[in-house]
Amino acid sequence: MKAGIIGASGYTGQELVSLLLRHPEIELELVTSRALAGQPLHRSIPRLGHGAGEMQFVNPSLSEMIATPCEIFFLALPHGAAAEFAIPLLEAGKRVIDLSADFRLDDSSTYHEFYGSPHPAPEWLPKAQYGLPELNDLSWNNSSLIASPGCYPTSILIPLAPLLAHGLVESEDVVIHSISGISGAGKNASDRLLFCERNESCGPYGLPKHRHLSEIEEQLSKFAKKPTVVSFHPHLAPMNRGICSTISVRSPGTPDADSIRECWLQTYSGRPFVQVLDDNSFPETGKVIGTNRVDLSVVADLRTGRLVLCSAEDNLVKGAGGQALQAMNVCQGYAETTGLS
Amino acid sequence: MKAGIIGASGYTGQELVSLLLRHPEIELELVTSRALAGQPLHRSIPRLGHGAGEMQFVNPSLSEMIATPCEIFFLALPHGAAAEFAIPLLEAGKRVIDLSADFRLDDSSTYHEFYGSPHPAPEWLPKAQYGLPELNDLSWNNSSLIASPGCYPTSILIPLAPLLAHGLVESEDVVIHSISGISGAGKNASDRLLFCERNESCGPYGLPKHRHLSEIEEQLSKFAKKPTVVSFHPHLAPMNRGICSTISVRSPGTPDADSIRECWLQTYSGRPFVQVLDDNSFPETGKVIGTNRVDLSVVADLRTGRLVLCSAEDNLVKGAGGQALQAMNVCQGYAETTGLS
Amino acid sequence: MKAGIIGASGYTGQELVSLLLRHPEIELELVTSRALAGQPLHRSIPRLGHGAGEMQFVNPSLSEMIATPCEIFFLALPHGAAAEFAIPLLEAGKRVIDLSADFRLDDSSTYHEFYGSPHPAPEWLPKAQYGLPELNDLSWNNSSLIASPGCYPTSILIPLAPLLAHGLVESEDVVIHSISGISGAGKNASDRLLFCERNESCGPYGLPKHRHLSEIEEQLSKFAKKPTVVSFHPHLAPMNRGICSTISVRSPGTPDADSIRECWLQTYSGRPFVQVLDDNSFPETGKVIGTNRVDLSVVADLRTGRLVLCSAEDNLVKGAGGQALQAMNVCQGYAETTGLS
Amino acid sequence: MKAGIIGASGYTGQELVSLLLRHPEIELELVTSRALAGQPLHRSIPRLGHGAGEMQFVNPSLSEMIATPCEIFFLALPHGAAAEFAIPLLEAGKRVIDLSADFRLDDSSTYHEFYGSPHPAPEWLPKAQYGLPELNDLSWNNSSLIASPGCYPTSILIPLAPLLAHGLVESEDVVIHSISGISGAGKNASDRLLFCERNESCGPYGLPKHRHLSEIEEQLSKFAKKPTVVSFHPHLAPMNRGICSTISVRSPGTPDADSIRECWLQTYSGRPFVQVLDDNSFPETGKVIGTNRVDLSVVADLRTGRLVLCSAEDNLVKGAGGQALQAMNVCQGYAETTGLS
Repeated sequence: MKAGIIGASGYTGQELVSLLLRHPEIELELVTSRALAGQPLHRSIPRLGHGAGEMQFVNPSLSEMIATPCEIFFLALPHGAAAEFAIPLLEAGKRVIDLSADFRLDDSSTYHEFYGSPHPAPEWLPKAQYGLPELNDLSWNNSSLIASPGCYPTSILIPLAPLLAHGLVESEDVVIHSISGISGAGKNASDRLLFCERNESCGPYGLPKHRHLSEIEEQLSKFAKKPTVVSFHPHLAPMNRGICSTISVRSPGTPDADSIRECWLQTYSGRPFVQVLDDNSFPETGKVIGTNRVDLSVVADLRTGRLVLCSAEDNLVKGAGGQALQAMNVCQGYAETTGLS
Repeated sequence: MKAGIIGASGYTGQELVSLLLRHPEIELELVTSRALAGQPLHRSIPRLGHGAGEMQFVNPSLSEMIATPCEIFFLALPHGAAAEFAIPLLEAGKRVIDLSADFRLDDSSTYHEFYGSPHPAPEWLPKAQYGLPELNDLSWNNSSLIASPGCYPTSILIPLAPLLAHGLVESEDVVIHSISGISGAGKNASDRLLFCERNESCGPYGLPKHRHLSEIEEQLSKFAKKPTVVSFHPHLAPMNRGICSTISVRSPGTPDADSIRECWLQTYSGRPFVQVLDDNSFPETGKVIGTNRVDLSVVADLRTGRLVLCSAEDNLVKGAGGQALQAMNVCQGYAETTGLS
Repeated sequence: MKAGIIGASGYTGQELVSLLLRHPEIELELVTSRALAGQPLHRSIPRLGHGAGEMQFVNPSLSEMIATPCEIFFLALPHGAAAEFAIPLLEAGKRVIDLSADFRLDDSSTYHEFYGSPHPAPEWLPKAQYGLPELNDLSWNNSSLIASPGCYPTSILIPLAPLLAHGLVESEDVVIHSISGISGAGKNASDRLLFCERNESCGPYGLPKHRHLSEIEEQLSKFAKKPTVVSFHPHLAPMNRGICSTISVRSPGTPDADSIRECWLQTYSGRPFVQVLDDNSFPETGKVIGTNRVDLSVVADLRTGRLVLCSAEDNLVKGAGGQALQAMNVCQGYAETTGLS
Repeated sequence: MKAGIIGASGYTGQELVSLLLRHPEIELELVTSRALAGQPLHRSIPRLGHGAGEMQFVNPSLSEMIATPCEIFFLALPHGAAAEFAIPLLEAGKRVIDLSADFRLDDSSTYHEFYGSPHPAPEWLPKAQYGLPELNDLSWNNSSLIASPGCYPTSILIPLAPLLAHGLVESEDVVIHSISGISGAGKNASDRLLFCERNESCGPYGLPKHRHLSEIEEQLSKFAKKPTVVSFHPHLAPMNRGICSTISVRSPGTPDADSIRECWLQTYSGRPFVQVLDDNSFPETGKVIGTNRVDLSVVADLRTGRLVLCSAEDNLVKGAGGQALQAMNVCQGYAETTGLS
């Protein structure tokens, strides 16, 4: 199958290019970037090397994109911009996996509240499928548009959603603390992201309403089957990649780690990219970098009646490009791990 | 005043040496280390340079320590070991500031529970004063023994204790998430602390009952005037120094950041080492490294009815050596900032 | 083909395990470690995940190793220890790729001089083939024993050897400066390799006779066709992986970058893992991490009559495990890039 | 004495502010920045804290600067811009320590060659004194204008200049390899300096004619008493601060480390900021960070007939702000270490 990537100048786009070039079922036909058009791919994605051949970033018009033999497009554009490309491509019969926030929410007023401007195409929101393969039954029959989840939401929904669905944890007083590597903040030449500003430093940001909170709550509410509001505290730490989330939840009864683990093992039975750690072992981002895996652990705190859920993932793989490929694999009927192991 | 440091081979001891050598009222007379005895100080504390002169680590007997003209001793020993030195020194009329956990708790059973062995000298626990200068009225009249607080507790008590004391936050469902630089784990040549194991990685550890939790809860309970149990989630991130704590608390009424800030400003009025940040600014460890300061901020989350308290400090300065000097300054009647600005 | 790895507890061994598990022509049958025997592979090589299945580290006797169906063994043992395993395996008809220094030198007295003890089996030195695929014609017909080059030598021989062979640079007054990530120092729990000791610091070590210098000079002498003695200055910098070497050489005539580039392009024509960079672009380790590539550049300095040759590689891939696989690929007749792209 | 800092928005300017605020003989009267005018100092120099009081960045006219009671001005401006301020201030009778490159060279054609534009005020070049206190006899009687040396030149001239002056090393075939922390590249929001671009990466840049080479060669030529041309290879490594330089030189006779050390010890006898390390110990940047010190070591390589000189310094202290203060201390007759220990 031939595929295109729209907007490949950022860290997510670069990861997508690397992954799709290695995917045995995909021929990467088109990689666009307004800023980098005319440059060979390997100049801004150096790990590719000259081995990526003569392929260049291009900047075609929408009609030229549509005219390509690509059946599927991955959009790695900023929110707001993605919709402009997604809709014409979909209308032309293409399949689209959008890695931006444009189609992740059901409710356009939530989009407006968290993203600060009206949604560009609210009528498309109900048509998209939310693309977390372990929690959603993905199929091109549902929709040709997959909204690939954000990096923070992935690290939170995987541990928390099934527990809410099974009533194993309470939906009130959920407190989520996440630590992200710097690539999560994007490739923007701002003072704040300079090496000397971020190295040897960590701290919270975006409190109390980081944009990803909208998506986290909307998804959690579906699994909890009631409106769910949570506390979400993102932090940056000095590392290139990785997110770890530590989630404190109240237990309806005496907290019991075994029943949590059991629920995870059943929910994710047969899923290659969720790994429940043994007792006394905690997820660390360094252990999942470069993989499409989410590692999980749970600890019961009998003194507070709470449970501590911990997860770690690579924000650019399971939190972005890898997850998009995984969703494609599932919908196309390829093995889920194709190009990802 | 002449001073000695007992057990100066670790990161805390090294910081103490650096600080005391610059302190204008102190003459550093004695620096002990079993492992480094006979070596010049600057070999293992290179920033000192040859300018530290011929001073060497020594390994005297207790009676030799007592025979020195030192009036005050700083203990930078592991817990358990500190009591062995502190008590004879106190009995000989010396003043002692202990940076270990040996005298931080009132309750010897809590010590046993969290440290895994009976307290070596429980009769001394009620005699020590807990040495957080901003929250305790320190005086040599109270005791010649100061138990200098741990690094995590400092970053948590400074923001949280006065709010509990004034009833501005609830004492239940407190969830504390902390991120520490690697020096907080000490200078132990273990695989886990090797550069390649910790670099480019972060994650939780010590859940659910890190040893510092005992001290955090005992102190919070005093300020809340009722038994207070909290959730505490320590993490390591790849940086040498610094701790940031993000504390989620329930508000008794509508959460209001201004009243929190007001309480902090009043409590810490005139205190040089607590800084309340402006709106929309968050503490970062990189901004306090090398200082004895704790930076604070607060955000109200009307959606969850909770408040988010954030703090940052240098774990080796305000979280260890700097705080010990500050306590000494206060008790000796020196200006609080002497040797610390 | 079935393969075994002997001594897989270090960083090189871990990389080999990861690479061989993904290699489509190889079935990894046996992974030994005295220290880790009985543990599942994924516990100490976390990126593997449970997906590595139930495979465990084992600690068989030599005769048990010989009795396995493995046709090829990779040795990731310390120097001195490797020979003890290599020779019996070879005598039993196995193929061996040794990643230690035990068979890299021709001259046992050089071994003694640089490694501080007599060579354990000098009669085997002439039997081994030095395994740098771009510079040596590798074949099982030559020998069943391949001595895989060290990380520093790879980064130096690739740029320098063909230029000496063609007389494009002088063999005197060669000054080589290399910077290595910390994994190059191995996984030893020593104070010197602790995170806080290496982070935010860089400097030289091992001057003036790092052990790899023996191998560098012996190889360069072959290409220069005369005894060649060089200055070699290794440094450590705070990063997990990567080596960059910057080599200053005298030009026999007016220094001319184009002729150097031309020589490289001809020598490495068709070789997938050597990349000559464009003008005005310099190798950086961050651009080759995770690849089996060496990036090269050259600058002429007309003022000094010297040329500056620069290279960068991943010390654990092209400098260790990747190179060993590449050598196997060549000897087995697999495509050179099999399992490495 | 009252002092002003012109252009304090970069890393050098920030360091100067911190140092001058602590200097017991100086009252910092004025801190200018076009970009930050109106902001309190502590907002962009967070380590200062609110303790820096209400002092703000200002943006006065030149005549307003002249009208202040400041007797001395430190210029932390880009090259080219510094001269515009320095000359009117000098003509108004002020003392000026310029941290830019504008007055470091004697020869305006060298300036043009290396900085790409004609020198803005060549008639001032012979009037400035080059401000390396250990190698130049600094005095306000010589000039009211001190050109404070660059960070690379400091790390190179301290070890090399006295050896050339005494004929202990040859002036030909000098090869200098330096590694700098990222703050050396300045505080510019460019892609190249983003955290994710520089972290986990190192490599050379600016070959073969980095701008500092002009200053290095002009100074070395004076000490060697003949035109001296050297090879200079700067590199960036992922750390905030620090420069280490490793210098390979030919020995006129049999290389002898002791005679080099002896020359250093004599040249720098009584100088508090040069430290010659013991045998078998090498400078590391982590050991000098936060100090005004240069650490030195030497190794003789009998095989090549060369000597390896190694140095390490904090590029923002001894390589910039600290050195400027040291020069002021000397000229003012303050103890050399005032405000610097």
